[in-house]
Amino acid sequence: MKNKKDTFIACEATYQKADIVMFGADFDGTVSYRPGTRFGPSEIRKASYGLETYSMALKLDLEHLKVFDAADLECVMGNVNAAHQQIYEFTKKVVNDGKVPLMIGGEHSCTYPAYHAVQEVFDDVMMIQCDAHADMRENYMNVKASHASVMYRLFEQEKHNLKQIGIRSATKQEHDMMIKHDTLIDDDSSTLQTFIESLKDRPLYVSVDLDVLDPSVLPGTGTPEPNGFSFNHLMECLTILFKGNVVGMDVMECAPDYDPSKVSSVVGAKVVREMLLMHGGKNGK
Amino acid sequence: MKNKKDTFIACEATYQKADIVMFGADFDGTVSYRPGTRFGPSEIRKASYGLETYSMALKLDLEHLKVFDAADLECVMGNVNAAHQQIYEFTKKVVNDGKVPLMIGGEHSCTYPAYHAVQEVFDDVMMIQCDAHADMRENYMNVKASHASVMYRLFEQEKHNLKQIGIRSATKQEHDMMIKHDTLIDDDSSTLQTFIESLKDRPLYVSVDLDVLDPSVLPGTGTPEPNGFSFNHLMECLTILFKGNVVGMDVMECAPDYDPSKVSSVVGAKVVREMLLMHGGKNGK
Amino acid sequence: MKNKKDTFIACEATYQKADIVMFGADFDGTVSYRPGTRFGPSEIRKASYGLETYSMALKLDLEHLKVFDAADLECVMGNVNAAHQQIYEFTKKVVNDGKVPLMIGGEHSCTYPAYHAVQEVFDDVMMIQCDAHADMRENYMNVKASHASVMYRLFEQEKHNLKQIGIRSATKQEHDMMIKHDTLIDDDSSTLQTFIESLKDRPLYVSVDLDVLDPSVLPGTGTPEPNGFSFNHLMECLTILFKGNVVGMDVMECAPDYDPSKVSSVVGAKVVREMLLMHGGKNGK
Amino acid sequence: MKNKKDTFIACEATYQKADIVMFGADFDGTVSYRPGTRFGPSEIRKASYGLETYSMALKLDLEHLKVFDAADLECVMGNVNAAHQQIYEFTKKVVNDGKVPLMIGGEHSCTYPAYHAVQEVFDDVMMIQCDAHADMRENYMNVKASHASVMYRLFEQEKHNLKQIGIRSATKQEHDMMIKHDTLIDDDSSTLQTFIESLKDRPLYVSVDLDVLDPSVLPGTGTPEPNGFSFNHLMECLTILFKGNVVGMDVMECAPDYDPSKVSSVVGAKVVREMLLMHGGKNGK
Amino acid sequence: MKNKKDTFIACEATYQKADIVMFGADFDGTVSYRPGTRFGPSEIRKASYGLETYSMALKLDLEHLKVFDAADLECVMGNVNAAHQQIYEFTKKVVNDGKVPLMIGGEHSCTYPAYHAVQEVFDDVMMIQCDAHADMRENYMNVKASHASVMYRLFEQEKHNLKQIGIRSATKQEHDMMIKHDTLIDDDSSTLQTFIESLKDRPLYVSVDLDVLDPSVLPGTGTPEPNGFSFNHLMECLTILFKGNVVGMDVMECAPDYDPSKVSSVVGAKVVREMLLMHGGKNGK
Amino acid sequence: MKNKKDTFIACEATYQKADIVMFGADFDGTVSYRPGTRFGPSEIRKASYGLETYSMALKLDLEHLKVFDAADLECVMGNVNAAHQQIYEFTKKVVNDGKVPLMIGGEHSCTYPAYHAVQEVFDDVMMIQCDAHADMRENYMNVKASHASVMYRLFEQEKHNLKQIGIRSATKQEHDMMIKHDTLIDDDSSTLQTFIESLKDRPLYVSVDLDVLDPSVLPGTGTPEPNGFSFNHLMECLTILFKGNVVGMDVMECAPDYDPSKVSSVVGAKVVREMLLMHGGKNGK
Repeated sequence: MKNKKDTFIACEATYQKADIVMFGADFDGTVSYRPGTRFGPSEIRKASYGLETYSMALKLDLEHLKVFDAADLECVMGNVNAAHQQIYEFTKKVVNDGKVPLMIGGEHSCTYPAYHAVQEVFDDVMMIQCDAHADMRENYMNVKASHASVMYRLFEQEKHNLKQIGIRSATKQEHDMMIKHDTLIDDDSSTLQTFIESLKDRPLYVSVDLDVLDPSVLPGTGTPEPNGFSFNHLMECLTILFKGNVVGMDVMECAPDYDPSKVSSVVGAKVVREMLLMHGGKNGK
Repeated sequence: MKNKKDTFIACEATYQKADIVMFGADFDGTVSYRPGTRFGPSEIRKASYGLETYSMALKLDLEHLKVFDAADLECVMGNVNAAHQQIYEFTKKVVNDGKVPLMIGGEHSCTYPAYHAVQEVFDDVMMIQCDAHADMRENYMNVKASHASVMYRLFEQEKHNLKQIGIRSATKQEHDMMIKHDTLIDDDSSTLQTFIESLKDRPLYVSVDLDVLDPSVLPGTGTPEPNGFSFNHLMECLTILFKGNVVGMDVMECAPDYDPSKVSSVVGAKVVREMLLMHGGKNGK
Repeated sequence: MKNKKDTFIACEATYQKADIVMFGADFDGTVSYRPGTRFGPSEIRKASYGLETYSMALKLDLEHLKVFDAADLECVMGNVNAAHQQIYEFTKKVVNDGKVPLMIGGEHSCTYPAYHAVQEVFDDVMMIQCDAHADMRENYMNVKASHASVMYRLFEQEKHNLKQIGIRSATKQEHDMMIKHDTLIDDDSSTLQTFIESLKDRPLYVSVDLDVLDPSVLPGTGTPEPNGFSFNHLMECLTILFKGNVVGMDVMECAPDYDPSKVSSVVGAKVVREMLLMHGGKNGK
Repeated sequence: MKNKKDTFIACEATYQKADIVMFGADFDGTVSYRPGTRFGPSEIRKASYGLETYSMALKLDLEHLKVFDAADLECVMGNVNAAHQQIYEFTKKVVNDGKVPLMIGGEHSCTYPAYHAVQEVFDDVMMIQCDAHADMRENYMNVKASHASVMYRLFEQEKHNLKQIGIRSATKQEHDMMIKHDTLIDDDSSTLQTFIESLKDRPLYVSVDLDVLDPSVLPGTGTPEPNGFSFNHLMECLTILFKGNVVGMDVMECAPDYDPSKVSSVVGAKVVREMLLMHGGKNGK
Repeated sequence: MKNKKDTFIACEATYQKADIVMFGADFDGTVSYRPGTRFGPSEIRKASYGLETYSMALKLDLEHLKVFDAADLECVMGNVNAAHQQIYEFTKKVVNDGKVPLMIGGEHSCTYPAYHAVQEVFDDVMMIQCDAHADMRENYMNVKASHASVMYRLFEQEKHNLKQIGIRSATKQEHDMMIKHDTLIDDDSSTLQTFIESLKDRPLYVSVDLDVLDPSVLPGTGTPEPNGFSFNHLMECLTILFKGNVVGMDVMECAPDYDPSKVSSVVGAKVVREMLLMHGGKNGK
Repeated sequence: MKNKKDTFIACEATYQKADIVMFGADFDGTVSYRPGTRFGPSEIRKASYGLETYSMALKLDLEHLKVFDAADLECVMGNVNAAHQQIYEFTKKVVNDGKVPLMIGGEHSCTYPAYHAVQEVFDDVMMIQCDAHADMRENYMNVKASHASVMYRLFEQEKHNLKQIGIRSATKQEHDMMIKHDTLIDDDSSTLQTFIESLKDRPLYVSVDLDVLDPSVLPGTGTPEPNGFSFNHLMECLTILFKGNVVGMDVMECAPDYDPSKVSSVVGAKVVREMLLMHGGKNGK
């Protein structure tokens, strides 16, 4: 007599049989302004029941995939390192077990430990960041593990592997760094297509900060930035990116309490469903 | 000393003199998830007072039409059949009296009894459904009269008369049925234009489920589905459809309480105003 | 890896071992004005995690009771009879298995089928109704199974068994009936104490419509009525009533969406916790 | 086919036959902080349909009174003098026609023109102000007609006639003036009873600023002030005051949009209903 | 120890050194329907801290401009003339001191006194109105200084200087006047470019009523009108307009309380930031 | 041209001249459930402008005190130790400078560093905790510095100095510890009076967790617990406690976003005003 709404719709495989393992990183502890992404994963799950399992756009059905929804990690607040360690360990286990992780956030800082765990198995994994904000500050209010610094940390590694789409907000310093390292890819279809083909089989980690969408499409996020993607445009971009070899993915920064219409959670859930199907559909499922 | 806001703006004809009769189907009794469309008609009326009676786009003024606003039917909750009977009887009277009904919903299941009443007078009336969802389940939680099944019921008739635009959510079974029966019309202008010309004078019932619009445009609805029409695109489609012989129409599924900005009610009111003017304007009024 | 928040806090016994079986009657289909009590049970469960399992007032701990939380019945909307049948059947099984049912509502009409099921086993069970409203209309908008008529139906039985506390709203007809049948008990402690002692071991069904509380204490309900009980006064009354032989109980009419502070759900959860402890604590648990 | 919710419940007498004439002063134009009482009258009317016409406390039924509800005056914003003139003229006509006015506000400044109109007929009419705030500033931001100055204006008259209950917020200057002129009456029952008996048949204008209630009871008001009356205590006071010769009354300062639970409007409606019944009930109706 | 959020981000020049002086016109006293733009300026300031000082689109940084933020004028409510006088006097001083005023509203009526003050110095200043509504009624409910009449007043001058973009709502009379006086400019880029070149150095006052944006982009405004500009399109238009000689500007009609997501305030803040940079950037700063 | 609403009303002394120094601890980083107390201090300041500077109850005026409002500390999120260090250092300076600190929270964990700083100067300072919750867990989700553990830490000191009033929620372990150490004082006036007299001049730190109030009085808090104090009762208790030698004080856990009516912030502000006056008034000011 289990309440079906605890898991994302139709994600009812066992861990053992699953190809994809979804989990919630219910952490927003470094957010200085508007907290609330901790509630993102649970609200996205609930909202998934307002969608069908079938995607008319992709002509694929979630019921044919094998996805396990591991619920939320119940991250520790007040200790960003402990929370990141939980995420790192869980992701590491999933990847070691030969499965693909899909993290639902939670604040964007959580992407670092998840990516890091993936990288330990796939050492040349490239990060593809879909985001409104560069997130490349050296630190934020002296917190290096901040959501505003998550992508900076990739540059501290020997050779960085970062490509970005959708960025429309950055400090001058971040913008200079983006130009110097040539991280920004234009988001038109043909550029993206050429880019993804050039990567061949290189493993990819696709991180979607939902604020890449226009705030009209997804108002429920911590730092809304006007002039973003339409839902359709994000789908076009992701469809192309998922032709690549995606080995890790996340959907971050849904803060449902700022959107009383609950549309933001539905949008988050549809992004998750389409990413699951884009990934799973390639394998003839 | 009547509060003017009880009726839609400028809809002050008597029943006897009216060409169009508007009424509210304040029923949401089969909704399993988020109720609230029962408040749609009254909020749409109130919101109409934030609009002008004149449409700059159509260059027509409501003050030149003869519309009677019959208020809400005060539908019985807890008994879908009784509510549908109320709607059927009211619509039947309107059509029998040679007037065109415009129903404001309320849940989409209410479209069936209204359409059915129109069909008894115009037996070849075609249903044009503008909607995000196919609404073609055989039943929903064993309720045949459900909002999720309203269009399925048209298939139980000897020959069906259903065309759809805007559908972007369906189960696999619904999608198969749509393809088999060729119900979906592409929503680009030239296809629609060709389609409407092919119909000649065939009577049409135009049903607008407001969730055909993108949730950013109309968040206040029971089952928001991302990736919908812009307001402008819906207007373009309706402008073409109203070149046909529209004998019945409805505007359904506005759930105002989910949108604290009240924009959803304003959008609903503007759709109603433009449909009234599109219909009335053809007759030289 | 189950999300703990699916069940009421510390209600983790199996069905077989449980003394009390809690379930959600997620139905509000006859409500003519403000719907939303369908969300009461799930929000009350969630809110229970903001409370302790231990009651300082009662000096008892939920962890020492055996309660099974059967989740929501997933009631059918649009068909009050079908929903009531679900409730009747579930309650019947619980009582037949020698356990005590605790229903969380949902609208007050659901109390009738639950009480009816209890009555088939305990034929002299007395209904103790804690409520702001008499709920004794012969019907409401022609619906006999309405929330506004639930207690009237007890009078259609051969001999009625109704006592009421807290009623502060009634039509003239209802008030006359209350006086004629002497249903209203004064809510001061000594009157209640005398009353409960007079009943000896007679089985009781205690139904709490949460709107018996003042709307300041619980604003999230469908029909708030000013001038109600304080939380403390309801606790005093229930403490005395539970000295009797309670064989069935319910906590109805929490409509959480009307209270953005979520205090109403917390209040509902604390009423449930204290009733569980008042019942369980008598048996030395 | 009139929407019944345009008038207060059961206030359906014609103007000619009415004993009491209710109207809305939908004005909040001098409010410097939180506007919104303009919506008070219409929301109080709507909320009245959640109440019964019968009062269990008073054992009286609105259906036996003759009340006309004249809707809102549609006050001009941006011009406090014009708005006050509208109120003055309407009230004057009502009093001249031998009827008792009941104004629903709107901001408290509107009380002055209504009282003034009553005073032209009943020249020794005493003002009884139930309020949290003294409202006795000489002016507020240079606006003499401000809501914060309404009672000061009574002191500019040759001999003032002001008594106050419930005041718990004042400037030092206001407090000094209250003491000097002995305006504050203690709100215990026996003091009030003695006071009202001392007045004999002197005409009274009873003005209820709803913020006299505790903000927990009525959060929807412009300037909530903690530590106010319970609903029950206000009823006790009014019951005594209405033993006097009430010739005018008002219920002001409900700002419904600040209370999403809509309890504030229900409280306002119940205050109105009880005041109507207290007044009407004395005359054997 | 000043709370930095009192001023718009990075607007920290002294008045003496400033090139641009920003101030808040916190007035909404003539609004007949939904008040609340009085809170626009303070919320826009707060929201500016969620943005960067640097604009990726313009490649300019606010930190290189000299802007003084003079806070709100603390306009008098209940007296539109007094409020307008405050705005007139403040703007006059700013212009006389050789600085450019940027007013944040507040209702659109406030544009008249600001424009008027600018006109006394630059007598051929042209008004460029970006707006959903024509705002050209002769009066509104007999108030000539109404927000709905602000642009009509320009026609009372000897020779008018009004150009409009984005207007999509007007009465028939307003529309006729717009056509007669040829006020409406098409908003495509090449038309605007040609227009702005034709003006040469003629001084411009650019007034942005934020409801020119689609309500999905900015729901928090008093009179949302469907079918408006995207954020990007407004930026395109402004980029061209600011090639002209802008000597005064305003950003009006943000009513933040209607948008719980606070996106509307962020949108308003980004419009302000981009206008500051468009203006300042021309001067090599 | 400073926005007056940045500081608490009438707290405009310089730091040098001030007797009391108020500051905001805008930290809620260890909260596992509902964050938001970080916004408490700024909203309480804003709400103070809806109150008078004069207290009718105390017959004292803030304008006669010397209070400096140091604004918010801008605490670091994601690092509880760093935030606590900020609080400790600021408080230490205030106490060393011979002034009395009044902290506005923020989560209750912040009380520990503030108390600790006071204790270094007044080594026998007694903590008087007014709270709904015992806050005496050894740790909470392994975080020792958690809001749920703040009072436990006092027991780790050699000799503890804790007295509690209002506690109505605790685990069994906490309740046992409260009884063992006799921390709970009965909140009736005569007990409190006797207690305070017994302390003579012993220094006191009075910490008010606003959830000691009933959730009807203050719904905007992280963990509302039914059955709390009325506003009046809290005032009675504080009036007695402030007869003691109060050398430090705080008002914690206002989470304004959960209360759209903003009453919670007003209640918080009135508690602060009365505590300032109770403290300042004793010294003949």
